[in-house]
Amino acid sequence: MNAEIIAVGSELLLGQITNTNAQYLSKQLAEIGIDVYVHTVVGDNEKRLANSLELAAERADIVILTGGLGPTKDDLTKETAAAFCGRTLVHDEKALQSITDFFEKRKRPMTPNNKKQALVIEGSTVLTNHTGMAPGMLLETEKCTLVLMPGPPREMQPMFELELKPRLLDGSGTAITSRVLRYFGIGESQLETDLEDLIDAQINPTIAPLAGNGEVKLRLTVKHTDADEAERMLDETEQLIQKRVGEFFYGYGEIGLMEQLAIQLKRAGQSISAAESFTAGMFTAGLTSYKGASEIFSGGLTAYSSEVKENMLQVSKETIRQSGVVSEACAMEMAENVRKLFSSDIGVSFTGVAGPDPQEGKEPGTAYIGIAGFKEEVLVFPLSLSGNRQAIRERAIKYSCFYLLNELKRWNATQ
Amino acid sequence: MNAEIIAVGSELLLGQITNTNAQYLSKQLAEIGIDVYVHTVVGDNEKRLANSLELAAERADIVILTGGLGPTKDDLTKETAAAFCGRTLVHDEKALQSITDFFEKRKRPMTPNNKKQALVIEGSTVLTNHTGMAPGMLLETEKCTLVLMPGPPREMQPMFELELKPRLLDGSGTAITSRVLRYFGIGESQLETDLEDLIDAQINPTIAPLAGNGEVKLRLTVKHTDADEAERMLDETEQLIQKRVGEFFYGYGEIGLMEQLAIQLKRAGQSISAAESFTAGMFTAGLTSYKGASEIFSGGLTAYSSEVKENMLQVSKETIRQSGVVSEACAMEMAENVRKLFSSDIGVSFTGVAGPDPQEGKEPGTAYIGIAGFKEEVLVFPLSLSGNRQAIRERAIKYSCFYLLNELKRWNATQ
Repeated sequence: MNAEIIAVGSELLLGQITNTNAQYLSKQLAEIGIDVYVHTVVGDNEKRLANSLELAAERADIVILTGGLGPTKDDLTKETAAAFCGRTLVHDEKALQSITDFFEKRKRPMTPNNKKQALVIEGSTVLTNHTGMAPGMLLETEKCTLVLMPGPPREMQPMFELELKPRLLDGSGTAITSRVLRYFGIGESQLETDLEDLIDAQINPTIAPLAGNGEVKLRLTVKHTDADEAERMLDETEQLIQKRVGEFFYGYGEIGLMEQLAIQLKRAGQSISAAESFTAGMFTAGLTSYKGASEIFSGGLTAYSSEVKENMLQVSKETIRQSGVVSEACAMEMAENVRKLFSSDIGVSFTGVAGPDPQEGKEPGTAYIGIAGFKEEVLVFPLSLSGNRQAIRERAIKYSCFYLLNELKRWNATQ
Repeated sequence: MNAEIIAVGSELLLGQITNTNAQYLSKQLAEIGIDVYVHTVVGDNEKRLANSLELAAERADIVILTGGLGPTKDDLTKETAAAFCGRTLVHDEKALQSITDFFEKRKRPMTPNNKKQALVIEGSTVLTNHTGMAPGMLLETEKCTLVLMPGPPREMQPMFELELKPRLLDGSGTAITSRVLRYFGIGESQLETDLEDLIDAQINPTIAPLAGNGEVKLRLTVKHTDADEAERMLDETEQLIQKRVGEFFYGYGEIGLMEQLAIQLKRAGQSISAAESFTAGMFTAGLTSYKGASEIFSGGLTAYSSEVKENMLQVSKETIRQSGVVSEACAMEMAENVRKLFSSDIGVSFTGVAGPDPQEGKEPGTAYIGIAGFKEEVLVFPLSLSGNRQAIRERAIKYSCFYLLNELKRWNATQ
């Protein structure tokens, strides 16, 4: 089975945004065994869109259109697709209701053109939009399976995951099961070198390394006809892999470092507080992005200036004078004092140079992470990070999660 | 004059990389007045590439191919393009020399397949590769102007800038200047309704609404032959627009709400501190993502639990008992007290329900933003936001930036 992806939107042709939807969909479709042969981008132009749709439908089994489902005049994907398969547009009550609710909730007047978003192609399966207003559509035409989804990734991605993917999988014969192993603190190329012979010998399951945001994932994918057998095959392969790189492993699936930390803290019944200098709240903002954070988190302090470190965190003048604020000693006092200040089980601290300019004669990327609460003494991890200001801050957060997860593992072992 | 862009590479169809070349080229071409109507991505497959090339050549004046010029077997863009216009491939001495030099410099043996990179389509203008080995090509065919460039952006972009752009400019006469106006607190459809007649009447400049992340942008684009005249035309159109929706306008170009706030605070010489409950550090983390944040920001407090609000922010037990923590009264005390605590000019506070569950009987999305320092009394802005947990938090941050920018504007006016 093969597919083509058509992204609709003049902003793409003006180069104002990148067509990340095509990448996302291609990756997802590849994983469920659907080959993608062509990507097309056309503007909000009925004639050219109809033309591209015509061509794609002749070549592919599945044609996925993204974009142009909005309320404005230049959104004409639905109209063009309906004309293409000789159907009319009808109001979908469920969609109309969710749009009306949206405006009532916002206490904003609903302009008439928003009603347009509730129009769907007659006879199509409506794909619910879980994060926006415009519904998606799935329908069988004479030439191909036609799919329409909204353009904004934050609407399109959940729609694919929750609405389209399951329906596509019903179609294909053999099932595909995959397992994602997540690693941190090891580079992609190092991981690949360590597993080279396994990766070369792979047939079923396949082993695919995926890198991104300083993390490395391994996706094991097995084609099968029996789910239990599939699990057994995945277990075997995972054991071989973990024997070699297990020390860098931190979790499965789509759960990243920060969410994993939130889960493990909850599991261990440990509360945490943070004193952040150069990360300035990124840790606490990240940790609280997950439901029920209040069980493990009471608060944190963004101690950006030396004054705040001294006055509110009681870092000793002596320490700052002798070692500076970007130092092991400062990180140590910050972690211990924030733990006491918020009377939490664990205290974590971040002090470093985000850049672009050096500070206290220390280069951008120089950072110290302090962890108090597990042992008598406060643990401090020195880092030398690369990248721009934001990358340095994000990496520091990831390292802190990885260190905290390791300490939690050790701590659990002793309980 | 119009163009089409064809990116060649199976890695694009597997979703391993994004097609950033199409975006870069589209943006560049728009600026020199060349319209791009279609982007296509095809794999390293001779038949499908030939097919796409055929179609593009029929539709467009210029067809730009990127990728597939490398030394390996699956690089077949040149071969396919040569066959398409019935020409042969010949060795380009200059290109061959630079490839030989490349290997000599690195003292690496030059494998025979690298010679392949010096092959160019006969009769084509060779576009020098300033950052790599594979040369580009520009040639006139019966159907269109054909351009071949390498796939790696670090090779393609300098080649466009230094080799292709000057040659294209000789062709086209007009230039394009555009101006982006940024708005917040108004929906795309509302904005378009308010400007409907202007948008309908648009010819030059054109007015294009772009929505994303709860913000709306208007891109005014003017085709011209004289830069000063262009600015005058843009000014005129902007004035017409601002008369109607100016209250929602907050800035120009690529600078978003948070960066705009950082800039304006610096400009006004005002320092700020934040007390964050449900946003838990997102405001401080965002504000400090820009260089030199220490000039305007000393610190903040993430007051997630009621205890922290009481003990560290001195929010009165009375307030919390009577109104709850998600209340106007609490937001007011949080803003004023954090301002004092960090002795900053301005104090901003965030309290609300991020969800997914209600809190104090208040629905997710219920939020209050407090701003202290501009007037005697603390300003409080109640919000009712929609979306998931993270969307609610992000929207609250955007609203706070917008409110702060408005207060700064008023404050500046009084200075």
